[in-house]
Amino acid sequence: MPRPKALAASELEARLAALPGWSLVDGKLHRDFRFPDFVEAFAFMTAAALCAEKLDHHPEWSNVYAKVSVDLVTHDAKGITELDFELARRMSAIAERTETGRTE
Amino acid sequence: MPRPKALAASELEARLAALPGWSLVDGKLHRDFRFPDFVEAFAFMTAAALCAEKLDHHPEWSNVYAKVSVDLVTHDAKGITELDFELARRMSAIAERTETGRTE
Amino acid sequence: MPRPKALAASELEARLAALPGWSLVDGKLHRDFRFPDFVEAFAFMTAAALCAEKLDHHPEWSNVYAKVSVDLVTHDAKGITELDFELARRMSAIAERTETGRTE
Amino acid sequence: MPRPKALAASELEARLAALPGWSLVDGKLHRDFRFPDFVEAFAFMTAAALCAEKLDHHPEWSNVYAKVSVDLVTHDAKGITELDFELARRMSAIAERTETGRTE
Repeated sequence: MPRPKALAASELEARLAALPGWSLVDGKLHRDFRFPDFVEAFAFMTAAALCAEKLDHHPEWSNVYAKVSVDLVTHDAKGITELDFELARRMSAIAERTETGRTE
Repeated sequence: MPRPKALAASELEARLAALPGWSLVDGKLHRDFRFPDFVEAFAFMTAAALCAEKLDHHPEWSNVYAKVSVDLVTHDAKGITELDFELARRMSAIAERTETGRTE
Repeated sequence: MPRPKALAASELEARLAALPGWSLVDGKLHRDFRFPDFVEAFAFMTAAALCAEKLDHHPEWSNVYAKVSVDLVTHDAKGITELDFELARRMSAIAERTETGRTE
Repeated sequence: MPRPKALAASELEARLAALPGWSLVDGKLHRDFRFPDFVEAFAFMTAAALCAEKLDHHPEWSNVYAKVSVDLVTHDAKGITELDFELARRMSAIAERTETGRTE
């Protein structure tokens, strides 16, 4: 599969409009998730890690107790690509399935 | 904390009545969970593993793709104890939070 | 990628000879791993889960505290395939990297 | 168990001297771990998460592919406590067991 190209600003806006909770921060796709506790937060991270490894595309993320902050960018493409949106959509789906992952 | 004692048959029945999805199989507390896919199943296992390690009480369990089968018993007590019910309740709570873990 | 075909008995023998710790049990590729404790055992399972999800080929496995028992087979092919050997090799590599996963 | 108190500067120095790879950064106990790949990095995080949950003391940490950065502090005590050193020691032990976690 060819690696995707960086999306233009207009394309980013259209895709962001369809992806609640995510925004553009420092040139990366960003979302803060908050869970009820560490156990839920880390279970989310494990599910997201499985998706990331399968896509062969990995997040920049940090965790403090029940909070998980995610930044997505495609370094090879020097920008945000379709691959970042795919991982973002899967992370949102995981968090919504638990009904506990909430954007702050 | 003193390790709990094996529960008598009448106590097991009362506690099982309050714990949907679990039953007594071969002298162990048993439940089969089914999830939408492997990612959800393994995220459940990770959350359950965190609970088990915190309780210092671990399950006998197996996984095949989206299915997780759990057996709980306290070998030291040669029977099922309050500790098994505590882990069972936490596993049920995790599976219910995801709204995807279903008893077969 | 086309799904691989079941390997013939002679091919299985040759591949098994190159894969220490694994044997043929009930028509599946089998290995029991033992770790120092539950934490190490579950960390191994997490690494193996990431490999399995990436290969889109998943193990039948069970865990009791520090022990992880694995059975690999390709149901679509009604036998053991190259995919099972690939996952077995990766699991062995993970366990050897920790220097703690030992065949019983 | 009573929550531990913040350690004095002289105590921090003595304990840091016995804990290779860790340093004091912005008032927190800090270490950067580097692994061969994402799978190893996330397996380390899972083992560390199990230790953290058992201690009921959690890290501030971030991950980018094969790198895991950890900051430990005890907010209740407004400083670094024995609990932070305990978690730091366990994280180091996990990384050393894999023989792949290296301080950058």
